[in-house]
Amino acid sequence: MASSDLTRKPTIRDVAAVAGVSHGTVSRVINGGHWVSPEARAAVEEAIRTTGYTTNHAARSLATGRSGSLAFLLTESQQLLFSDPTFALLLRGATAALAERAMTLVLLIADSPGEQANVERYVRAGHVDGVLLVSSHASDSLLASLVAAQVPTVCSGIPRAGDTPVPSVSIDEVGSARMMTRYLMDRGHRRIALITGPNDTPGGRFRLVGFREELGDRFDPGLVEQGPYERDSGNAAMTRLLERAPDIDAVFAASDVMAVGAIDALRRAGRRVPEDVAVAGFDDSGLAAVHTPPLTTVRQPWPDISATMVDMLLDIIDGTPRESVVLPTTLVVRESA
Amino acid sequence: MASSDLTRKPTIRDVAAVAGVSHGTVSRVINGGHWVSPEARAAVEEAIRTTGYTTNHAARSLATGRSGSLAFLLTESQQLLFSDPTFALLLRGATAALAERAMTLVLLIADSPGEQANVERYVRAGHVDGVLLVSSHASDSLLASLVAAQVPTVCSGIPRAGDTPVPSVSIDEVGSARMMTRYLMDRGHRRIALITGPNDTPGGRFRLVGFREELGDRFDPGLVEQGPYERDSGNAAMTRLLERAPDIDAVFAASDVMAVGAIDALRRAGRRVPEDVAVAGFDDSGLAAVHTPPLTTVRQPWPDISATMVDMLLDIIDGTPRESVVLPTTLVVRESA
Repeated sequence: MASSDLTRKPTIRDVAAVAGVSHGTVSRVINGGHWVSPEARAAVEEAIRTTGYTTNHAARSLATGRSGSLAFLLTESQQLLFSDPTFALLLRGATAALAERAMTLVLLIADSPGEQANVERYVRAGHVDGVLLVSSHASDSLLASLVAAQVPTVCSGIPRAGDTPVPSVSIDEVGSARMMTRYLMDRGHRRIALITGPNDTPGGRFRLVGFREELGDRFDPGLVEQGPYERDSGNAAMTRLLERAPDIDAVFAASDVMAVGAIDALRRAGRRVPEDVAVAGFDDSGLAAVHTPPLTTVRQPWPDISATMVDMLLDIIDGTPRESVVLPTTLVVRESA
Repeated sequence: MASSDLTRKPTIRDVAAVAGVSHGTVSRVINGGHWVSPEARAAVEEAIRTTGYTTNHAARSLATGRSGSLAFLLTESQQLLFSDPTFALLLRGATAALAERAMTLVLLIADSPGEQANVERYVRAGHVDGVLLVSSHASDSLLASLVAAQVPTVCSGIPRAGDTPVPSVSIDEVGSARMMTRYLMDRGHRRIALITGPNDTPGGRFRLVGFREELGDRFDPGLVEQGPYERDSGNAAMTRLLERAPDIDAVFAASDVMAVGAIDALRRAGRRVPEDVAVAGFDDSGLAAVHTPPLTTVRQPWPDISATMVDMLLDIIDGTPRESVVLPTTLVVRESA
């Protein structure tokens, strides 16, 4: 049946007849595709095309309140999306997890307050069924708005302060930092510096906590610098550290990108890596393996993080509460430390 | 008035009263924000927050059919989004153009046929008001589906073959390639190679046409290679060219990324750039200016391309037909050629 054969607008029943499935199956495919076999889905998709059936979102939304999509909401600058490979890793994992369920991933970027207001309006209007909130900063007013509007939401990173009833997927920040610090101590390094992240990020606060705990009496606050996870900031932090403490023999950076920046500064100062100064990173983003020298780093379980976020959010959308999850990390030893 | 003061669900009239504006102004803000002063918008946004008013998307959509958002739809691999800086440039421009209008940009990535089916369903359901289709490939069945579903759409790149009634924003491909080829000839180069893009992309077909037209009798098909705009493919193409024609004295690559790959291959072969072999790129993505040596290239007018696409799409959504637009490019001479 071609669309031109129909003098009236095709209905869901026409689609069911052409696909040879029940009305209910067509409805489930249209409403996000849960509980439908791949064969039935393919038949329905084909029948939708053949009949020229157009779903009426407004009527559907009134009936089900579902859009068949989740937002990947990044409250960072668009610049950071392209310069920090960890966002691409999370995005890829979330896309794959949704594609398996025939759902659509919608990427929204809200950096400025104006963009956040626009995105909030879009999300509250029901154009997505829930939000994967990806942000390294704890101070998001957007999160409070989403909670107030009862938008199903899951966060990446450490659970937020206070009583925010939003579960998160995070890694063991303190334990990861202790693990790398112990590794550097065991390799015989005595003057170990830390380039940590900003105070309002889990990678800023808790990696410093782990570093300090593991060093104990040997902790020297003069060997700590901070930077916003960018290459230039790693470079600048390393330059300041070398001025203050030329005898540094190892550096632990809170991201691979900052570790690369630190290596830039060490090379400019004529120091060899790892012979003169060992450099360790954090993340195991794609960068670490291809850098010269390859970076010793802490591997975050990227595919697990995004798959767990998607799984939790779909449960919450379906009315099943979920608790926050903390995932383990792995020490990856390469050549830089 | 705090939301807890209201025993009934707040209405649009409550918002208007708190904001001190008319019901119509609130409605315009909610429905995408056209024709509202920034002050009135701010007052309405604040009143929406104060009253706890939640827009009812379903009812709104039935009334207006508008979501206040446009899709930036990329029919390429997610990998390419992060490896080719030109997509980030277009995305940044489109985001800025929409932010000015208090609209939301929704990034959708549809590479596989399955993802394209999901995205098509999402778009047809009215979750966006129109589509900025960003693809370098001409063979998109997705475009035909969007046209069939009467989704307002504007394409980047060359207008599609045949009778597709979708306007596009493109650059003068043939003229741009002639301009760079002429520049290389005028610099005294005699054995000029071309690394062009795939046949099914405008940058593959039309840059070859311009190159061939400008060289005239001096065109040598043995000096042409193709690659999918990636660094590795530029490297591999240059390696093949050097094997066939060791006397090459200039190379014109159809993207800056491929030009960088070509320089990798030339360095490995012991050739200096530009002393032994001049290398020119295409795009003037951020990469060209920061590369060592900085790349001579063809600048695409990125901010104009995305702003023009958004402007055309908003007109089409409002019922005003628009014709395709071809924008001029600029020769940017730096150090590589």
